[in-house]
Amino acid sequence: MQLSGFRGGNGIVRLIGHRGARGVMPENAMEGFRFATGIGVVALEFDVVLTRDRIPVITHNHHLSRAATRTADGNWIKGEEPKVADLTLAQVQELEVGGLDGGSVYGKRFVDQAFMNKVRVPRLADLLDLARRPENSGLHLLLELKSDPEMKDDASERSDVVAIVVAEIRARGLEPRTVLHSFDWDMLDECRAQAPEMPTSYLSKLPENTDDPGEDSSKSVGPDFAAMTVSLPRAVRDAGGQIWCPHVHDVTSALVAEAHSLGLLVCSWTVNEAADIEAMIDAGVDGIVSDYPGRVQRCLLNRGLNWIGSAG
Amino acid sequence: MQLSGFRGGNGIVRLIGHRGARGVMPENAMEGFRFATGIGVVALEFDVVLTRDRIPVITHNHHLSRAATRTADGNWIKGEEPKVADLTLAQVQELEVGGLDGGSVYGKRFVDQAFMNKVRVPRLADLLDLARRPENSGLHLLLELKSDPEMKDDASERSDVVAIVVAEIRARGLEPRTVLHSFDWDMLDECRAQAPEMPTSYLSKLPENTDDPGEDSSKSVGPDFAAMTVSLPRAVRDAGGQIWCPHVHDVTSALVAEAHSLGLLVCSWTVNEAADIEAMIDAGVDGIVSDYPGRVQRCLLNRGLNWIGSAG
Repeated sequence: MQLSGFRGGNGIVRLIGHRGARGVMPENAMEGFRFATGIGVVALEFDVVLTRDRIPVITHNHHLSRAATRTADGNWIKGEEPKVADLTLAQVQELEVGGLDGGSVYGKRFVDQAFMNKVRVPRLADLLDLARRPENSGLHLLLELKSDPEMKDDASERSDVVAIVVAEIRARGLEPRTVLHSFDWDMLDECRAQAPEMPTSYLSKLPENTDDPGEDSSKSVGPDFAAMTVSLPRAVRDAGGQIWCPHVHDVTSALVAEAHSLGLLVCSWTVNEAADIEAMIDAGVDGIVSDYPGRVQRCLLNRGLNWIGSAG
Repeated sequence: MQLSGFRGGNGIVRLIGHRGARGVMPENAMEGFRFATGIGVVALEFDVVLTRDRIPVITHNHHLSRAATRTADGNWIKGEEPKVADLTLAQVQELEVGGLDGGSVYGKRFVDQAFMNKVRVPRLADLLDLARRPENSGLHLLLELKSDPEMKDDASERSDVVAIVVAEIRARGLEPRTVLHSFDWDMLDECRAQAPEMPTSYLSKLPENTDDPGEDSSKSVGPDFAAMTVSLPRAVRDAGGQIWCPHVHDVTSALVAEAHSLGLLVCSWTVNEAADIEAMIDAGVDGIVSDYPGRVQRCLLNRGLNWIGSAG
């Protein structure tokens, strides 16, 4: 049921709004999620971490970034970046996250992003409530659980994180439209153990790809790719996954075909340049995770494809 | 009062959303106007023409473009482009205008624009109602009156168009936030005669600039620039204008300085590339009319400027 939102074929390639629509709107913010759903995006990817008072909130890095965080007086935060896990929800929400510092490396990556005031880190509950609105009854969620590298080996912490997040989803009856997604394969084991009704999606980025500037690395929480003795799709399948989400540079037609032969869906990220969008369509992926949903819509329509409708 | 929304100086350069935010959202549509105001744009430029039943609607060309217009079944319109003046409001609103044909010359100019369903040509009244909402109390309107070249010499038609549009503005008490804007200097004479309480804004594009593909030309309705014996700012001033809106390629620091010395404000259009945005800031314009408001916000902030606040 959840997978219908991520399955391609039959003229369909799914469009998944990355952190909403990071190229256009502040990332992981309600304003960006509303923008994306407003333009007809029916699948959203976003990132969840817990505050000190154990509230799941939507933000990418474990530490709030100097490039994207202002104090209530409008100034960029200075000094050490505060860790979300050390702040209460109230403390997190004192800060503004509606724009990027154009002088930062991260800011220079997204020069068209709107700059807004009064934007706060949302609770997971806020996005789930948006998904429950009648006009969003077709919205699917690709909920990324971020693993804190400092806690990576703490099974009890992992169990708590999954329990808290799953409880929020279940409390709103959104399990039928939510896929649990992570770079951390141990986290996904825990998800399946606690919430077998929700499929799991395996993010991967091979070690030869560099980290994205200004973003937490996935390298310390993912599996040891060098030690893998089977193909990545096979490893995802063996682990129990239903979606494989490879980095755009790691996708080949052969790997997509192999994944499909194993019964997996393939959604690649973060696909922003038109040439990359075309390459992903050519490779046969089921879905494209992008910061620029309008651009993906155009590329699909130019090829007689769509992102909405029944897949093969 | 109206001019406060378009006056720069003192660290302020105004950001005017061109047809909403054409680079990101369908142009001249409520969805795009709401997007623009939602990201903090407080001045909107848009185009008004009349339907056959004499309702002012917001669309740029006199004929609905094949590149941007679909029938209710989702297909691009075929054959001759229908003229808005030949259709009733109901007929105009049967058509969908929420996306561009990527195969068209016009569509290729705006590759990131969202593709939406159920978007209709709005009435002027719809946008005026949006401007009246409490959260938009600071919104200023740069209302462009489009002159039909076929009716250019019809003074009675011109008088009717102005009367109908002005009545809509006055009915909602929005004269204090509206500037009347046109390429047609005769039209602006008529505006001043009928509605002296609203300032007039003079669009210009020198003949050496090519027309924008897919858009009605301004050349047949504007003045004879070759016959002008004074500078363009002086001509605008002599005609009775308060804002001069030159094409981005026609702007020089000297002309901006001359305009300012004559008491005019200068807002240039359509300023989309970062280098052009920088050049307009350097030239000292009061306002920048852009399809990419997020990009302008970034350029301004990078230079310690803002688009909101009190100007000099």
